[in-house]
Amino acid sequence: MIRDREPIRVAMLGCGTVGTEVLRLLQDQPEEFAARTGAPMLVTGVAVRRPHKHPEVPEQLLTTDAQALVEGDVDVVVELIGGIEPARSLLLTALRSGKSVVTANKALLAEHGSELYAAADESGADIYFEASVAGAIPLLRPLRESLAGDRINRVMGIVNGTTNYILSAMDSTGAGYSETLDEAGRLGYAEADPTADVDGFDAAAKAAILASLAFHTRVSAGDVHREGISGVTPGDIAAAATLDRTVKLLAICERVVDDNGAESVSARVHPAMIPRSHPLAGVGGAFNAVFVEAEAAGQLMFYGQGAGGAPTASAVLGDLVAVARNLVVEGKGPRESAHAQLPVQPMGKTPTRYHISLDVADKPGVLSQVAATFNEHDVSISVVRQQGRGAEASLVVVTHTADDAALSSTVDKIAQLPIVREVVSVMRVEGEPT
Amino acid sequence: MIRDREPIRVAMLGCGTVGTEVLRLLQDQPEEFAARTGAPMLVTGVAVRRPHKHPEVPEQLLTTDAQALVEGDVDVVVELIGGIEPARSLLLTALRSGKSVVTANKALLAEHGSELYAAADESGADIYFEASVAGAIPLLRPLRESLAGDRINRVMGIVNGTTNYILSAMDSTGAGYSETLDEAGRLGYAEADPTADVDGFDAAAKAAILASLAFHTRVSAGDVHREGISGVTPGDIAAAATLDRTVKLLAICERVVDDNGAESVSARVHPAMIPRSHPLAGVGGAFNAVFVEAEAAGQLMFYGQGAGGAPTASAVLGDLVAVARNLVVEGKGPRESAHAQLPVQPMGKTPTRYHISLDVADKPGVLSQVAATFNEHDVSISVVRQQGRGAEASLVVVTHTADDAALSSTVDKIAQLPIVREVVSVMRVEGEPT
Repeated sequence: MIRDREPIRVAMLGCGTVGTEVLRLLQDQPEEFAARTGAPMLVTGVAVRRPHKHPEVPEQLLTTDAQALVEGDVDVVVELIGGIEPARSLLLTALRSGKSVVTANKALLAEHGSELYAAADESGADIYFEASVAGAIPLLRPLRESLAGDRINRVMGIVNGTTNYILSAMDSTGAGYSETLDEAGRLGYAEADPTADVDGFDAAAKAAILASLAFHTRVSAGDVHREGISGVTPGDIAAAATLDRTVKLLAICERVVDDNGAESVSARVHPAMIPRSHPLAGVGGAFNAVFVEAEAAGQLMFYGQGAGGAPTASAVLGDLVAVARNLVVEGKGPRESAHAQLPVQPMGKTPTRYHISLDVADKPGVLSQVAATFNEHDVSISVVRQQGRGAEASLVVVTHTADDAALSSTVDKIAQLPIVREVVSVMRVEGEPT
Repeated sequence: MIRDREPIRVAMLGCGTVGTEVLRLLQDQPEEFAARTGAPMLVTGVAVRRPHKHPEVPEQLLTTDAQALVEGDVDVVVELIGGIEPARSLLLTALRSGKSVVTANKALLAEHGSELYAAADESGADIYFEASVAGAIPLLRPLRESLAGDRINRVMGIVNGTTNYILSAMDSTGAGYSETLDEAGRLGYAEADPTADVDGFDAAAKAAILASLAFHTRVSAGDVHREGISGVTPGDIAAAATLDRTVKLLAICERVVDDNGAESVSARVHPAMIPRSHPLAGVGGAFNAVFVEAEAAGQLMFYGQGAGGAPTASAVLGDLVAVARNLVVEGKGPRESAHAQLPVQPMGKTPTRYHISLDVADKPGVLSQVAATFNEHDVSISVVRQQGRGAEASLVVVTHTADDAALSSTVDKIAQLPIVREVVSVMRVEGEPT
């Protein structure tokens, strides 16, 4: 029965680490894929820039003309080249002519997701992109489908392996950021140009995709407040440790409801202290994990490998099977669900909590001056810890929740107090009851 | 646009804790569901046994005639009555007349899954059952869809909240099984008749569903080797603790490949010691978590609430949205994928590891006699720990992997050795490198 059906013709754009794995797995067990989807899958072409660099790909499949490949007789286009152009134009061409798309391209989706969705909707094609966030972890399908009957209030996760590796290493060795980044580069955990990772661009694109799916709205990469990890100091890590916390780079997407019941979305990427008892605290090295809080489902966590050839290929192939099944039964995967049209909350108005560690003069009245400054800004204090060490004394303050702008200007004011010698560490606190 | 479309008509069978939540959530935000699915959802009837016990359901919806409701003008049947009959007949009636089904009924699926699948396939209807395993945790959709392009080798999880609560409590208090079960009953964590939970029937049904989906084959509840927790003693828990392990009731589904490359499936439920460092060890109380190992994706974990009205309702509603979307686009969800037709491995031939704790005579030669017995059965030893305490001495042995039958008969032989005073604890070991 299966053999009688026309094969699903697959065009691949790009053939790096992930593409090579996709190709290998597809060709390893053709019968298995045919049985799972209801039709054989046939790779009809692989577009690459330098064909001689791909001896592992059968020569007759290789082409440098991606445009012709996409315009040719194919049913599905698997895009693994990354970046905005030419990926965007190629996928729009595919979708407009009714060809379904599987992509791992987070940057493209975070910038031009709605354009791609619209093209898919018009022609009836599918667009799947599980591999774009958290690699092999099934996360987007649960958000788009499993939780489609629930109300998600918060998604918080470690979605970048490079920065998680660096912060985990800083936490365990006490070393500084630059030194640890160099080490990560030597070990292959950081790229030669690590900007996209360490400055949070990669995580911000993922946060945009997660927020859009979770809240049925449109959030682009540019809407996401973004702070990287280059400013994280051993002082921050040490300050976190004294309160049994650790520092993680988090992508946070929250539904925010103001006093009048008006809803908005906060989408942000920044380092934060979380309690060591929090499940995300134990996520080490290059692993990813994402916490989801939904009204009915409660707390959920998804954990696994966030990057790498084989794990990412697993996600791409899962999507490819979904597209193929849809083609066989003439069905269609989920469409963009952006009906909620929620505004994105500016960072300044987002409720957060701060952990502030100060070197202060060791004399009476310090705490009352600092407390008065918090009071002036309507920021209430949750925990204070004072430690005198001769001429130097330290004061650690953890606030209750307040607008981020109020917290930030409080810190500015405190830094100007004559009794404050140095602001040792300022960091947001996440993952505990407010 | 959405308002113009005919509503999706939903019939509910049963209205206990989960059903009440499903109804409440559906009626709370009708616009939201319509926007997400592309059509309004309309509950047209709720079949219950005692209508007067459901003041929260609008009277005109209530009926005692489930058969008539299912045969009437409905598009989807949501089954929440549980048990085999009348659920089986009602769902077959629904599916045969082309009505899609959403069910949380693990016992029915584990016994008659293939019959239901076949009926759905013939008429083109959908059958979804995310809520049947691990409550709110999106687990079946990832297995059925996200990992459809990968090769799953192992699924291991805590899928029963009652037994996890009892074992967690025994671990932290040192109390015995009966005492802890009574306490769990008082606190509402165990049913008046806890048999289904503590004897592993509930977990075995879930293991059957998981093994079927993970390995593209058919495993029924009766195929699952099942041991409950009533035999777990404080001695077992203490023995586990001395090697930094804890005891969990695990559902384990494994792909087993023999020396000739022939594949089979092991599906089993039994208590096992796992290292305290294993992510499943930290899953406390009534939470569920499932570990999945796939060839390309590597290790994944899914964590969340495994039971309860609202969490289970979240899973049911996610499925209901999926069915409704399929109806709107005239698509179809995934079919049964049982093409692999793998035999189920008998427990005796399944490779496992044992932890054995013995009270022995404190004299020379004990270890050599015990070791000789292992050797006679071709079982190799991984760790031995001897502790002398005057007249009484203890010997702890952890084996390497061997056939379960060989391990079991080794233990029988050891128990008969004159130098062995008592076999304090025998338990399988999971979750560490073999």
